[in-house]
Amino acid sequence: MSTARVDYIAPWWTYWLHNFPHINLRLKPVDGSFNPQEENYQQSLIFLVCVVAAGLGLNLLFLAIYLGCLCCCRSDEEDEEETKRPRSCCVTWTAVIAGLLCCAAVGVGFYGNSEMNDGVYQLTSSLYHANHTLKGVNTLVSGTMDSMQGSLKQHLARLDEIFAIRGDYIQTLRFIQQMADNIILQLTGLPDWGQTKVDLARIADQTSYVEYYRWLTYLLLLILDLVICLVACLGLAKQSRWLLTTMMMFGVLTLILSWVSLGVDTATAVGTSDFCVAPDKFIMNLTHNGISTDIVHYYLYCSQSMPNPFQQALTIYQRSVTTMQIQIQGLLQFAVPVFPTAERDLLGIQKLLNGSEASLHQLTALLDCRSLHKDYLDALIGVCYDGVEGLLYLSLFSLLAATAFCAMLCAIPRAWRHFDNRDRDYDDIDEEDPFNPQARRITAHNPVRGQIHSFC
Amino acid sequence: MSTARVDYIAPWWTYWLHNFPHINLRLKPVDGSFNPQEENYQQSLIFLVCVVAAGLGLNLLFLAIYLGCLCCCRSDEEDEEETKRPRSCCVTWTAVIAGLLCCAAVGVGFYGNSEMNDGVYQLTSSLYHANHTLKGVNTLVSGTMDSMQGSLKQHLARLDEIFAIRGDYIQTLRFIQQMADNIILQLTGLPDWGQTKVDLARIADQTSYVEYYRWLTYLLLLILDLVICLVACLGLAKQSRWLLTTMMMFGVLTLILSWVSLGVDTATAVGTSDFCVAPDKFIMNLTHNGISTDIVHYYLYCSQSMPNPFQQALTIYQRSVTTMQIQIQGLLQFAVPVFPTAERDLLGIQKLLNGSEASLHQLTALLDCRSLHKDYLDALIGVCYDGVEGLLYLSLFSLLAATAFCAMLCAIPRAWRHFDNRDRDYDDIDEEDPFNPQARRITAHNPVRGQIHSFC
Repeated sequence: MSTARVDYIAPWWTYWLHNFPHINLRLKPVDGSFNPQEENYQQSLIFLVCVVAAGLGLNLLFLAIYLGCLCCCRSDEEDEEETKRPRSCCVTWTAVIAGLLCCAAVGVGFYGNSEMNDGVYQLTSSLYHANHTLKGVNTLVSGTMDSMQGSLKQHLARLDEIFAIRGDYIQTLRFIQQMADNIILQLTGLPDWGQTKVDLARIADQTSYVEYYRWLTYLLLLILDLVICLVACLGLAKQSRWLLTTMMMFGVLTLILSWVSLGVDTATAVGTSDFCVAPDKFIMNLTHNGISTDIVHYYLYCSQSMPNPFQQALTIYQRSVTTMQIQIQGLLQFAVPVFPTAERDLLGIQKLLNGSEASLHQLTALLDCRSLHKDYLDALIGVCYDGVEGLLYLSLFSLLAATAFCAMLCAIPRAWRHFDNRDRDYDDIDEEDPFNPQARRITAHNPVRGQIHSFC
Repeated sequence: MSTARVDYIAPWWTYWLHNFPHINLRLKPVDGSFNPQEENYQQSLIFLVCVVAAGLGLNLLFLAIYLGCLCCCRSDEEDEEETKRPRSCCVTWTAVIAGLLCCAAVGVGFYGNSEMNDGVYQLTSSLYHANHTLKGVNTLVSGTMDSMQGSLKQHLARLDEIFAIRGDYIQTLRFIQQMADNIILQLTGLPDWGQTKVDLARIADQTSYVEYYRWLTYLLLLILDLVICLVACLGLAKQSRWLLTTMMMFGVLTLILSWVSLGVDTATAVGTSDFCVAPDKFIMNLTHNGISTDIVHYYLYCSQSMPNPFQQALTIYQRSVTTMQIQIQGLLQFAVPVFPTAERDLLGIQKLLNGSEASLHQLTALLDCRSLHKDYLDALIGVCYDGVEGLLYLSLFSLLAATAFCAMLCAIPRAWRHFDNRDRDYDDIDEEDPFNPQARRITAHNPVRGQIHSFC
């Protein structure tokens, strides 16, 4: 990651995800182009969620059969005392592997959650920055139009009265008014970003809002996973029945949550990747009603060879301002000695024109494609690199967590049976009870006897 | 992190780190302003490394005394058979806590390493982007100067010959040449970014290079820590002497590495924070010889109310181009019917002027403060938020790892003594050896006897 990404290239994982089968709910293949409005496309994402839901169903079925077998076969194996030790050892190893898997899942989940948050943050930052730029354009355009239509008109009206007897000066004032109208015409011709601006800010706000709750939900899920895992291990170590029962119930809940999370993450990752492999196409389709294709092309590709679609308007603006400045300069030189009262208004117009010229430079900078194009690239990189990467890590977390909890749900009932066997052997002494003096005495005087509860 | 940072505010942790005592090697307080060239300031950072080195010394001394005591007191306690079990239990708990601490340290370390890498990546990206902007300015300036000094001169020379008999047209050509000289004069007046450009690219390259090796070193250190920790646990579980001996040696090495990393991270974090609390001041000092204060202020603060220091040059450029275009338009209208051979050159000049106008718009956009100011903010946020945060996490990792390895180095020799005691008790059978049939028989036929090696 040491070189700067000067342009956007969709990462390989988005192509991999984009190649996932897109099948609608009537099991017919559909087009994989990102089109969230289209019903068939929506169904192809829902189909992925359904596939994962089927996985959840199978997993629960397997667990039910496994637990059923364990209950039914209980009586058959009760007397196999010789094979008890290897089986309890297997329980311990399953518990240890489940614990390690759970820790690994939580680690991967934390990383994925943070990575996705970074990606979405980069997206919203870019949206806010783009919005700031468009807002700047609107402010400059409306500011210039106001000064041309308001202050300038007032100054010209007063000068009209002052120069009433001089036809040539009146002619010059008409010419200045014509230039001002020219500028207003050019500014009116610029696309109205008002609507776009509102949309960008709203999209960024909504994305931030949703992302905050998504991040928080995952954080809570990760903490819940870790707590269940640790408490289950504690339950196994302490051989506490009520802890294990509670953890089994929570384990089933977390197993279901993990599968749900896997389904949602997979569908989101595939949808986002469909966007990431051809973002320009989607944006062209999205904006083809509101803004001209030339302008969208200019901002999407921002190539040096592409003509600036605003160049003509900006040039006319500059030329009109320059012409007006020259005319005002002339009037200041020749008319003021004759009409000294005109000086105030002429200087007012000169100041206004200097302000308009500064606005023009800022407007040129804001309308230039670099700033908005960089925001676009930053947003894409945020979504398609960090965002989709984060989603993939979160999917991996869900898979690992599901495996870990499945293993735990298999191990706990076996451990339970082990406790039952032990209790049958030593049901005269409650050795768990730390306040039982008999148990303690046994442990202290016969350390070898005290070790009998270990699983392995 | 859901709202966009529109401006830079130094995070609280940089103020906290900036308030660390800055004391030189002669133990005198020095100024805490970031000034890496100044000897006293360098010494204040080295002082922090020395404090951490003293911590390492104390830690090693404590370990030496502890191990010495453990060896000397060996004979006194040999017969205290009654208290052996609680002590071995203590060893197990210490090992478990050391293992957990080590895992926590590695988790924190991975996060910190990734966070710092992100921060430095953001810094280098911004530097590359700023460099790209400055390179763009240089290319546009040199391109326009070349066309004004080269092609335009050739066209004018040819037109001079064609219009030789018409004094008024020759006058117009002189005027056009004067305007072109005007533009060249304005462009020459722009600051030469050549030197700055090279510096930025070089800084970014060097930073990327150093960061790559820093990241890799930490990754290897993290993996080493994890491997040592796991192998030590395995050694304790398997009661393997050679594994434990090797791990003790590696443990001492990693302990030293952790302290070294703590020292370097602390000094770097404090140094970076000194920069982060007042970055503008440092950059003003750095650039006061090369670039005018106005320009640096314009880019550092980029306020709407600040005048653009290039506005005059850009306006003169635009006016000159406009004037030349009007003159060429006039010649095309009135001279071409008389001198048809002049059309080619006049159209050539017109094309060149249109190109210059497009360059002017791009130049206006590139010289505007928004782009460079955004790069500056992005770089600052990368360094002072993600970068320093990453360094703090890495410091925490170093502290946790040092504690974990210290605990491990204390636990292993105690475990060793426990093995010695056990071997004295049962030195007729090598129960470690999985190929010893006698040992296996004992375990299989007497599971209670097989449990005797557990620590707790």
